[in-house]
Amino acid sequence: MKKFMDKDFLLSTETAQKLFHEYAEKTPVLDYHCHINPKEIAEDRKFDNITQVWLGGDHYKWRFMRSCGVDEKYITGDASDYEKFEKWAECLGHAIGNPLYHWSHLELQRYFDYHGTLNKNTAKEVWELCNEKLKDPSMSVRNLIRKSNVTLICTTDDPVDSLEWHKVIREDASFEVKVLPAWRPDKAMNIEKPDYLTYLGKLSEVSGIEIKSFKDLSSALKKRMDFFAENGCLVSDHALEYVMYAPADENEIEEIFSKRLAGNSVTREEELKFKTAFMLTVGKEYADRKWVMQLHYGCKRDNNDLMFASLGPDTGYDCINNYAPSSQMADFLNALNKENKLPKTILYSLNPNDNEAIGTILGCFQNSDAVGKIQQGSAWWFNDHKIGMQNQMLSLANLGNLSGFVGMLTDSRSFLSYTRHEYFRRILCNLLGDFVENGEFPEDYETLEEIVKGISYNNAIQYFQFPL
Amino acid sequence: MKKFMDKDFLLSTETAQKLFHEYAEKTPVLDYHCHINPKEIAEDRKFDNITQVWLGGDHYKWRFMRSCGVDEKYITGDASDYEKFEKWAECLGHAIGNPLYHWSHLELQRYFDYHGTLNKNTAKEVWELCNEKLKDPSMSVRNLIRKSNVTLICTTDDPVDSLEWHKVIREDASFEVKVLPAWRPDKAMNIEKPDYLTYLGKLSEVSGIEIKSFKDLSSALKKRMDFFAENGCLVSDHALEYVMYAPADENEIEEIFSKRLAGNSVTREEELKFKTAFMLTVGKEYADRKWVMQLHYGCKRDNNDLMFASLGPDTGYDCINNYAPSSQMADFLNALNKENKLPKTILYSLNPNDNEAIGTILGCFQNSDAVGKIQQGSAWWFNDHKIGMQNQMLSLANLGNLSGFVGMLTDSRSFLSYTRHEYFRRILCNLLGDFVENGEFPEDYETLEEIVKGISYNNAIQYFQFPL
Amino acid sequence: MKKFMDKDFLLSTETAQKLFHEYAEKTPVLDYHCHINPKEIAEDRKFDNITQVWLGGDHYKWRFMRSCGVDEKYITGDASDYEKFEKWAECLGHAIGNPLYHWSHLELQRYFDYHGTLNKNTAKEVWELCNEKLKDPSMSVRNLIRKSNVTLICTTDDPVDSLEWHKVIREDASFEVKVLPAWRPDKAMNIEKPDYLTYLGKLSEVSGIEIKSFKDLSSALKKRMDFFAENGCLVSDHALEYVMYAPADENEIEEIFSKRLAGNSVTREEELKFKTAFMLTVGKEYADRKWVMQLHYGCKRDNNDLMFASLGPDTGYDCINNYAPSSQMADFLNALNKENKLPKTILYSLNPNDNEAIGTILGCFQNSDAVGKIQQGSAWWFNDHKIGMQNQMLSLANLGNLSGFVGMLTDSRSFLSYTRHEYFRRILCNLLGDFVENGEFPEDYETLEEIVKGISYNNAIQYFQFPL
Repeated sequence: MKKFMDKDFLLSTETAQKLFHEYAEKTPVLDYHCHINPKEIAEDRKFDNITQVWLGGDHYKWRFMRSCGVDEKYITGDASDYEKFEKWAECLGHAIGNPLYHWSHLELQRYFDYHGTLNKNTAKEVWELCNEKLKDPSMSVRNLIRKSNVTLICTTDDPVDSLEWHKVIREDASFEVKVLPAWRPDKAMNIEKPDYLTYLGKLSEVSGIEIKSFKDLSSALKKRMDFFAENGCLVSDHALEYVMYAPADENEIEEIFSKRLAGNSVTREEELKFKTAFMLTVGKEYADRKWVMQLHYGCKRDNNDLMFASLGPDTGYDCINNYAPSSQMADFLNALNKENKLPKTILYSLNPNDNEAIGTILGCFQNSDAVGKIQQGSAWWFNDHKIGMQNQMLSLANLGNLSGFVGMLTDSRSFLSYTRHEYFRRILCNLLGDFVENGEFPEDYETLEEIVKGISYNNAIQYFQFPL
Repeated sequence: MKKFMDKDFLLSTETAQKLFHEYAEKTPVLDYHCHINPKEIAEDRKFDNITQVWLGGDHYKWRFMRSCGVDEKYITGDASDYEKFEKWAECLGHAIGNPLYHWSHLELQRYFDYHGTLNKNTAKEVWELCNEKLKDPSMSVRNLIRKSNVTLICTTDDPVDSLEWHKVIREDASFEVKVLPAWRPDKAMNIEKPDYLTYLGKLSEVSGIEIKSFKDLSSALKKRMDFFAENGCLVSDHALEYVMYAPADENEIEEIFSKRLAGNSVTREEELKFKTAFMLTVGKEYADRKWVMQLHYGCKRDNNDLMFASLGPDTGYDCINNYAPSSQMADFLNALNKENKLPKTILYSLNPNDNEAIGTILGCFQNSDAVGKIQQGSAWWFNDHKIGMQNQMLSLANLGNLSGFVGMLTDSRSFLSYTRHEYFRRILCNLLGDFVENGEFPEDYETLEEIVKGISYNNAIQYFQFPL
Repeated sequence: MKKFMDKDFLLSTETAQKLFHEYAEKTPVLDYHCHINPKEIAEDRKFDNITQVWLGGDHYKWRFMRSCGVDEKYITGDASDYEKFEKWAECLGHAIGNPLYHWSHLELQRYFDYHGTLNKNTAKEVWELCNEKLKDPSMSVRNLIRKSNVTLICTTDDPVDSLEWHKVIREDASFEVKVLPAWRPDKAMNIEKPDYLTYLGKLSEVSGIEIKSFKDLSSALKKRMDFFAENGCLVSDHALEYVMYAPADENEIEEIFSKRLAGNSVTREEELKFKTAFMLTVGKEYADRKWVMQLHYGCKRDNNDLMFASLGPDTGYDCINNYAPSSQMADFLNALNKENKLPKTILYSLNPNDNEAIGTILGCFQNSDAVGKIQQGSAWWFNDHKIGMQNQMLSLANLGNLSGFVGMLTDSRSFLSYTRHEYFRRILCNLLGDFVENGEFPEDYETLEEIVKGISYNNAIQYFQFPL
């Protein structure tokens, strides 16, 4: 029997242990997609207690507590921070097989040097230990990032964002980690939303271009892309219901846009046409700028109206949308490609059943622009666990070029989540170790080192062309 | 090499063996969903021979025999009982990897104390042994239930059912196992069926409410729910093509219903609207009554017209329907939830690819009404095998709260199927054992005992609020 | 640690090793579906160098090279054969986890007796070794087939094909392997294609029936089926987007066909109706002739317009189409079955998520016409790897009769691909070995031998009724 989460956690063979400890463990971390707030880095935020860090905004943990029948009072309600932590500890004690169990204990081990298990019996002890440690300057946001051996972070930013905090960080010579903005123009695309015109107003203002047509919208976005580029942006990101392809000509798009500008709502068909046109327009820009296009799709958001009314978005009420026609995704990529305007692209579906369709679509658009020009993103969100990552990597290995994979990202709002890179690397090394131990790949450590370090770190630098 | 199906069958580690033998093996069985006939319990039926028990109505076995090229004569035709058994034995001898191999041998071991293997060579010997044993009073229906350590059974009953046999059983002090009815109103919902009006006639009669409108239908159903409640019902069950959500206002529903009452057929769109309204109506009732709502979906039934004409339904001609939009299921649950009328719900899809979508939908509607208020049902029907159960539990563990899972049910028409609970528990214990052996969960037997006994038995009592 | 790809490659237990070495290894190969060119057999082609054999038309390898960022010049362009081989070797050196790694090394071991690993360092050495060996008469097409222990091959042929090369082979007493044609009438069905009328012209010519109606088309096809039958054909094959069922009456089909004959294009709805009618018509013919109907579906082809313009079809730009409603497939099979005209059928989906839906559909149409009358085809194309084959066989074992499976086929354009039968058998034996080692099936070698040899070879002879 292996010991609980010791140094060889998830590494079931000697080869896996060697690959991890010799190649992966000390390789730096590059977090090319996350949702942390740059202001907190700029201000080098510190935390009062572990509830603030862990339960302040982590909808994964909230969902799990609700699944355990915990009253909302102890989740997002007015219970005290200690009461919330205690409930969480009690729930976690039963979270067998859930990634939260591993994430939480990895964080306790790496950041708090706590190697016990957290449950209702140890809640008090862990609460006190963590809070004591959080007082230490080494637990400020910047020091957590340093301790995690991170060299570069991309945040997620709206086109109207001033990027002021990125500037502060960049100009502060005392902080050596690069923090780059990433372009996420969902609000400029979501024509069906009630507040769309308000958003366009803001975009007009910051871009200095009055938006009276789709052409104007494109111009305004380009100006903001220029601004993002000046601030070091190399990556875009989109949240899509699915990667749709409903082509329409320019006039039709202008008509749809005019209709919406006049305050009317658009039909579902018009929405899909507009979004297709939007994505084609920005996609071409990304190609010209050599930005990477990240497409996150397969999510149906905010499914619980009652809770949305009280808590708003990103509070644990999203689910997998299993409608995502691969044919439209292929057609969309082809439409860009046939004009030689397909950017480097990373495809992430929330539905793990899409792994294989994605794996085969990648191969249709690869060329010498980059190693693995079209990538399958690492197991996303609900799939960010041992089985999800294994399946994503096995599918990619079978259907594409695993060795060129750009690897892990945290996608997180927390500064303790860098241990998920460790989690990923353990799973990666275990998988590669199995191939070698089973006689499916030679015991050639030179090549294996290159592959492990590539997927852990080097491939991403090369792919995104980060200034490292 | 492990011995064939010995006491450590499916238990590949010492931890798994400990969990099973110390915690799971002797825990009673609660079978909250099955299709056995209460009359057979009331009358304490006995069987003449093993063909009657095994091959009289088991469409799993029939399908397998057909897959082996056996003539229908030896399946549902006029061959003798022994000839049928012999053909079955010959087929089973080659059923490598099929759950029937394990189910059948578990039944032979537990109920007939036969520990060999059944195949064409042993057919005669097994036939004689089983038939001899079946003569013994210990092999009556009630004694089989007792021997299986069952404490409670829920049958599956139509709203027009008199529940007379449930009453007989309840009033018979000599039988200590609770046998409760469960409410399954499919016939009241299936407006597209040719015999719908005939069914409404019966429902009018038993409820004493003449059904002239959808409102009347609802009233009639409520009266019958009262009757079921008086008879101890705590569970409902629905067979749905998929969990649809096609909302319509009351007037439209009344119009659709009137059209059908007048003898006309309804369009597919009308059918979906009607069924949505039906499910919303009964769902609210379940919430008020604190009944559990079970939704079984993803099945396309009676696909072979030729055989349907001669054998009727439930004879082995059903398949997975892979159309089941998760977005509609989420919308349906939300529609009930936003009126605070979402009952405790168990979701079962026949399509194993739905595991993850279900797992994420659960989390959108959990609250403090119950631990795991929204449950993913145990691997259903065609998925009721080692891989299906493993995948269902791993998905649930990753995405929800495995420790709160209400666990196994037989879904069976046979009194020998309680060994499927054993099968399930072995797979469960093996899975949990692997987590511990791999260092993914601590070797904390107090917690593990609670989890194993919870999933095996205790969670279901708590969840359904059974009077045990 | 197991040695790299030694004699026990993929055989992880002693039982697996025994099953493979004693039963599977020396059993002959029957390749009932492939895309090799009969002319090359007739002329007993020899190859100039390994690039010609390996990289001349293998879109699997091309895709992988593109995924590694290789310039098209070195793939299908004007680089020298050695330069192409060198690039390929470099890519292959990193192909960890990809089936190409195993396929290529199996071919190097079995046909070239090379037991090292191919990568950029060994490229030169392997190039020279292979090219030297290719000069030997033992490396002619016929001798490669003999060396592979092949007894029968079915090619893939268009209805207008003269089958002249099949005749040459048949009449050449010096070649003892049977090479039969297989009927693939895609071009006669694809009414939406621009060159459809040209094709009909050819079909009119070779059949001697002027095609002025759908009835004429059917008659022309029947005449060609007679011709194929005279030439030994026993198998048909279809490439379908999905197995559709859009029934229409004869008149409507004739109208659609007339419209197209007049040079007009058809709507999508008309296309689906026409294709349904086409498939029903030929399906009935297959039933009458006792031909097997193979349905390959779930593929979206030629997704990269740019590359299609320069390279044409079958060059590595196809992907999984995840739209394939199981309900329509069931309805289509039922439509044939209810007229007692459902032929023996093999279902192959490119989408591995369809495994379970297929597994349940099989069972709806099995009868005593054959063991496993409706078959799930072996893991196809993008699924032709260890995980894909395991999953297909496990799904089939769980849902149907694995022991009656007709097993592997190469689906290949290359004469070195027969090692994929070995690959398949190793995976099969490992799977069966696991069942035995885990105590899930008895250690009954008589039955296991029958199952292993059946799936490897004997079942296919029996199923297709090949003259062997």
